[in-house]
Parts: sequence; C-alpha cells; structure tokens
Amino acid sequence: MSAAPGHMPVRVVEVGPRDGLQNEPMPVSTEVKVGFIARLVAAGHTRIEATSFVSPRAIPQLADSTEVARRLPRAEGVRYTALVPNRRGLDAFLAARDAGSPLHEIAVFTGATDRFVLANIGVTISESIAAFRDIVARATTEGLGVRGYVSTVFGCPYEGRVAPERGLAVARTLLEMGCAEVSVADTLGVATPADVERFLDLWQAASDLAMDRLALHFHDTRGTALPNVLTALRRGVTTFDASAGGLGGCPYAPGAAGNLASEDLVYMLEGMGFSTGIDLGRLVDASSHMAVALGRKMPSRTWQAEVARRGAGMADA
Amino acid sequence: MSAAPGHMPVRVVEVGPRDGLQNEPMPVSTEVKVGFIARLVAAGHTRIEATSFVSPRAIPQLADSTEVARRLPRAEGVRYTALVPNRRGLDAFLAARDAGSPLHEIAVFTGATDRFVLANIGVTISESIAAFRDIVARATTEGLGVRGYVSTVFGCPYEGRVAPERGLAVARTLLEMGCAEVSVADTLGVATPADVERFLDLWQAASDLAMDRLALHFHDTRGTALPNVLTALRRGVTTFDASAGGLGGCPYAPGAAGNLASEDLVYMLEGMGFSTGIDLGRLVDASSHMAVALGRKMPSRTWQAEVARRGAGMADA
Repeated sequence: MSAAPGHMPVRVVEVGPRDGLQNEPMPVSTEVKVGFIARLVAAGHTRIEATSFVSPRAIPQLADSTEVARRLPRAEGVRYTALVPNRRGLDAFLAARDAGSPLHEIAVFTGATDRFVLANIGVTISESIAAFRDIVARATTEGLGVRGYVSTVFGCPYEGRVAPERGLAVARTLLEMGCAEVSVADTLGVATPADVERFLDLWQAASDLAMDRLALHFHDTRGTALPNVLTALRRGVTTFDASAGGLGGCPYAPGAAGNLASEDLVYMLEGMGFSTGIDLGRLVDASSHMAVALGRKMPSRTWQAEVARRGAGMADA
Repeated sequence: MSAAPGHMPVRVVEVGPRDGLQNEPMPVSTEVKVGFIARLVAAGHTRIEATSFVSPRAIPQLADSTEVARRLPRAEGVRYTALVPNRRGLDAFLAARDAGSPLHEIAVFTGATDRFVLANIGVTISESIAAFRDIVARATTEGLGVRGYVSTVFGCPYEGRVAPERGLAVARTLLEMGCAEVSVADTLGVATPADVERFLDLWQAASDLAMDRLALHFHDTRGTALPNVLTALRRGVTTFDASAGGLGGCPYAPGAAGNLASEDLVYMLEGMGFSTGIDLGRLVDASSHMAVALGRKMPSRTWQAEVARRGAGMADA
C-alpha cells in the first residue's frame, strides 16, 4: 500500500450484537443490547447485524429478537440486518418490520463443509441452500436486502484445511440465488495471507463473480485477521465484517479468540488513510458498555490499549 | 505476496527470556529460565536474547544474569545475545564468557525520543550513544557481535507520534558506531502498515543503510504487529523480533498487550511458505513451560488456540 489510498472508503459490517452476543454465556438484557446498538450507531456504524430470528431453544441469547427489532434506533443511512435461519424466522422478521422495525436486510447462513453445517444448523449444505431459495425469493419480493454467509471457507474443526474451490462454489450459489452480498468467513481463524490470495485468485478469475459482492469475515484466533484484511484490501476487497470489542468467537475452539475486533480493524484502516466513517473513541465507548454489562474486559487489543491509555492519561496514539 | 516465496528464510530473533521476563511481576527461578531457553532451542530458535547484565536494583527480574549465562545450553548454530547497558554490564558479560558461557553478542538500547530514554535508562539519547561508543568498540575488539535497539520509533508515551526521521537518525548512528544490526522498535504498538512504509521509504532512499542490517521489533498492542511484518516482508526486511507466548509488554501502557508473539509470527510466516526453521508445536511447549511457571495463560493468540485445539482433540489447523 505504498500509494496512499487517499481516504478510499472501506465498509465495516458490525456483527457484534448478533454474532458477538450469540455465544455469550452471560445473559444480556434487551435494554443493554439496544443501548449497545445505539452506541454503535453513534460511533458511525452504518451496517449493523442486530439480531437473529432463530428458535429461542437453539440460541436463548437472542430470544428477544422481536423486541430488539422493535427498539432499534432509527438513524439516517443505517442499515440493519437480522439472521433468518428458516421460513418461521422470515415470518418473524416480516412481522417485526410490519410493526415498524427499521430492519431491512436478512442474512442466511451456511458453510463450506457439511460436517460443520450439520453441527451448526442440523442440515447439509445442499439442504440449507434448498431451504434458502424460497426464503431469499420471498425476501426479495418484499423488497428486503439479502446477505449470505459461508462459514469454514478456510478450515473446519472436523475436516481441517478446506480447498478454496468449495467455499467459492457455495458463495456462487448464494449469489445466483439472489444474495446481494456474500460474506466469506474464516470461522476457525486459520487463514494466512497466502490462503486469502489463493481464494481471491479464484474469485477474480471467475467472470461471474464481482469483487463488490464479496465481504470477508476473519476471525483473529491466531492473530492473522488484520494481515488477511491488508492482503484483501490490496486486491480490491472493500467490505469487512468485525465485532465491537472482539465480542464472540467460535464455540468449537474453546478459549480461543474469535471475531476480528472492530476497534482493531478501524485503528489499522484509519491509520492507513482509509475512511471507515467510524469514530474510534466512540466505538471504544460502545464496547465499554458491553464490558460493564458482561463484567469482563473485551478481547480487542485496541480496546484494551485505549482504555489503558485513557486511564494513564497518556498522549494520543 | 502473490508470488510464492518458495521457502525464503526469515530470521526470528527470540526476545522472550530478556525482554519478555524483564517486566514480569512474578519471580522466575534461574532453573525455569534455563529450561525455557532450552525449549526455545529445541523448537529451532537460533537467535535468542538470553538476559541483561543490568543492575539488579534496576531490574531484579534479571539479577541472575551471570548464572543464566553460565547455564545456557550449548547448541550448534545458536547465537545468544545479552543486553549490556554500560561498562559494568560489559565487564560482567566478558567475565561470563571467560567462564565458559556461550554468549557471543551484546545488545545496546536507546530510543528515538529523549523523554522515553530518560525515563528508561536515566540519560538522554546523545548521552546513551556517547556511552555506547566505548562499549561497542571494546565488544568488537573482543570479537563479539553487536546489536542496537532503537525504541519509540513510531510513537512515545510522552510525545505521541514520532517523525520517522528521528528513529532513522539514531539507527544510522548505531550502525556507524559498529552495530552489525539495528532493531527498530514500535514500543507503544501504534504503527500501522502506512507508518512502516514511510519508515522503509526513508531507509531504502538512504544509500548508506542496507536492508539486511535492519530488524523490526513490533508490539501487538493494537493488533497491527503482523500486518506490519507483512508490509515489511514485501519490502525486503527478513529479520523480526518476537517473544515466545507474547511474554512482556510495555510498562508504560498497563494492561495492554506487548511484544509480538513468536507463535503468531511463525504461524503466519510458515503458512505463507516462508521458512523460519522453528517448529510451532515445540514453540507452544516452550511457552507452556512459562505459563505453568507464571500460573497464567500466555497472551499469544496462536498459543491459546493451539492449547485449546489440543485439549479439544480437533483436526490440525
């Protein structure tokens, strides 16, 4: 990145309220969640994955999705997404929207390896895709945006390394089906820049796959999330998922760090001259709101450093 | 790094036993330190900063430097370094060597900002450099290798951002004085890839500064250590400092992460096809030795992920 990018915009999709809180063992009140989202909006986030219309038995942490949807702060230019695992989820999404929720994008979730998808949502990849066809068509008819997730693209807890062609094929199917954007995820956090290059080589070689329909979702399990972002930026990817404070992780790798932290991403991007539209100090405040609610520090390195720096009264970084 | 580097060697300088343990509040026995170093050697490390011949009043953690030096494992091709802050330190280093220690490189330490150097070693940058002239000359006459450290090159806890010209000038002085290699450090962990590019632009534009005499020492305080390494690799830098487990940090940023973890560095480099000569599994074992001795987990993300993966019996990453 020798050439200064001259404030080229990079889009950050904030997944903390859904992906982050989904695996949180501490119960979090609707009040705290809505306050978290309001602070993310105040920090400048414009794409926020707010909740999931999933069975409360499957994910009790998100059982208040309808209430969260109803209380989402209305803000100019902010686009809210909710995960919709099935037809019943879409019904609940539409009911919330009809009741006045500003939600306007659904997300569907599958993966690159059958064993992981089976363990996560109880069906194979093909079964999940078959079920999504109807959901995506209905959502599109209703004028909603649609986002698709492909997990375990670089590695799977059951199968180890995954050939990039497999994730690419699933991503293509989701795009053909009507997803406006597909988020390709390194769920285990095993990818290095070389893996990202290989995946993007394939993506760019495919005449039907546009770079602006690709988002990358890195986990920082081995510290490679930011070098992977840097590599993808150089190849023209401009949309990255991240979670405030680094909330959330992979339940299949206990004790390990999970989602790339929004603070770490924003710190690097802004330091390099990219424009995210996000204020780092206010983002730290949003994560501190969750740190207080959860009674523990956030895993984000930048969050920890900024909180320590404020406490010590040190010069601005 | 689109072109596969084809097992190009990258040198990792392991600083855990000195830089890592120097700020450790828990007392660590000589036995544990020597066991740590032996495990680092078994993992394949060939450059290890073993201790510091500093006043035991200044750094009680390293008061056993003579004993550590005496008990260093002899191993073909392994080069041990010790920090030498002053003439008395060099006397102690030479006495240890005369008594049979395999130490054969000294390191001297200064910085890019007077306030930080004053706070750390009680003198200004110029005073530190004046004192080093005699030490470096004597060490060279004795046939020792000499390494120089320049701290706070990208940022200072007292002065904030630092212009890259300042660190470069100090590095040049150290090289002219006889240091074979200079380690340029982002002590606060504030640098992004754009800062690294700017520093390397200056370095490469200077006809008297060779790339192979530069080592980079990144701190992972805000998660940017690995993207910075990636950027420097692309520019031809091939020597990086790191600390097993991510031991050590900056005492001026309490609570914040410090040294780039050797595991994180080795994981990324080996995954990209670079050859470090270091076995990740054995490196994790070396850090686990310290985790047990210190009674806490190591900050390295890769260490945490590998330990969790072993515990869960998951497929290889």
